[in-house]
Amino acid sequence: MALLEHLQWRHAAKAYDPMKKVSKEDLEKIIEAARLAPTSSGLQPFRVIVVENSELKEKMVPGALNPECMRDCSHVLVFAAWDRYTAERIDEMYNLITDERGLPRGRFSSYTDQIKRLYSSQSAEENFEHAARQTYIALGLALAQAAELRIDTTPAEGFNPKVIDEVLNLHEQGLRSVTLMYVGYSDEERDWLAPMKKVRVPREEFVIKYI
Amino acid sequence: MALLEHLQWRHAAKAYDPMKKVSKEDLEKIIEAARLAPTSSGLQPFRVIVVENSELKEKMVPGALNPECMRDCSHVLVFAAWDRYTAERIDEMYNLITDERGLPRGRFSSYTDQIKRLYSSQSAEENFEHAARQTYIALGLALAQAAELRIDTTPAEGFNPKVIDEVLNLHEQGLRSVTLMYVGYSDEERDWLAPMKKVRVPREEFVIKYI
Repeated sequence: MALLEHLQWRHAAKAYDPMKKVSKEDLEKIIEAARLAPTSSGLQPFRVIVVENSELKEKMVPGALNPECMRDCSHVLVFAAWDRYTAERIDEMYNLITDERGLPRGRFSSYTDQIKRLYSSQSAEENFEHAARQTYIALGLALAQAAELRIDTTPAEGFNPKVIDEVLNLHEQGLRSVTLMYVGYSDEERDWLAPMKKVRVPREEFVIKYI
Repeated sequence: MALLEHLQWRHAAKAYDPMKKVSKEDLEKIIEAARLAPTSSGLQPFRVIVVENSELKEKMVPGALNPECMRDCSHVLVFAAWDRYTAERIDEMYNLITDERGLPRGRFSSYTDQIKRLYSSQSAEENFEHAARQTYIALGLALAQAAELRIDTTPAEGFNPKVIDEVLNLHEQGLRSVTLMYVGYSDEERDWLAPMKKVRVPREEFVIKYI
């Protein structure tokens, strides 16, 4: 089975079966797809918070636009981006890169100096916005990985980040929530979107070709 | 072969073999992965511009941070987001959705009224930023599809959007370039990143679990 088939299969689940849990092994694969996502300069400026604990989920419910999905899904994944880029964060990542490749630390310093100058010339909000964009690459790949496993998901931007950030203490970790992803198994009776046709902009409109 | 293997395989190509072209069939699959990407409210607020024409590529070169990649790659994909959300654009998409599903137009009007209010309360820049985020989902899936086909790619944020937008007349189409994606076959001798180990933040640091 190929990616295009998985993408055709998936839809944004509108209701979950609260009795069905995603296995630990499958969950790890979904997280791994997010971890392998490419990001700008390879900085991976975000983290994924996985919430299965029902008490913690309940605390997040007031911040959710679709509280039933949050309660009934197997796991909630929170994609949370760095609140800003710092020289320390950039050095930490590039020290990991050079160490893992057996290269001397500072091997890419002309490049890292350049990105440090760029990011420090921007506001924290601009930094965050850039980091936030990167999380969408990982979100897309995590959705695709779940679909490959025939696990249902719902990508959700509609939530109150203040509530989520506070419940998960994200501020203290230098993170801010960007998107949620509900993971589980759709409740076939209540998931009204499941039987509906997937609709996309026609190819001839979606693509402009200069061949 | 599964998605995680494709993601392990891929890297950001740093040089392309100018003699190797991606087939039309493979190119269509890469575009299709972008077209099937989920987006906020299903609006697909972006288009993909495919440039193979070498004269047009040459006009875009002054806007590229890596001009050799742009010249030598087989195709350049430009992910360009809507410059703003409008009631017309939202209605057009939802009319397509209801028509394709055999539902009466306006079936989702309470929802579309809500998103129209939301987006019209924001500035055009806020609208664009939101639409721009969605393009990263499609970018990630297009990169994954290329990897499945063992086709090399380079996601590129480093470019001058003014140049690209002007060369492609994006402004007139209500679009603004967000990311580029070079597609082709890596030049093994010049692609210095190809032999290097892929490095990612360790799992225990990347994920925070509340189980």
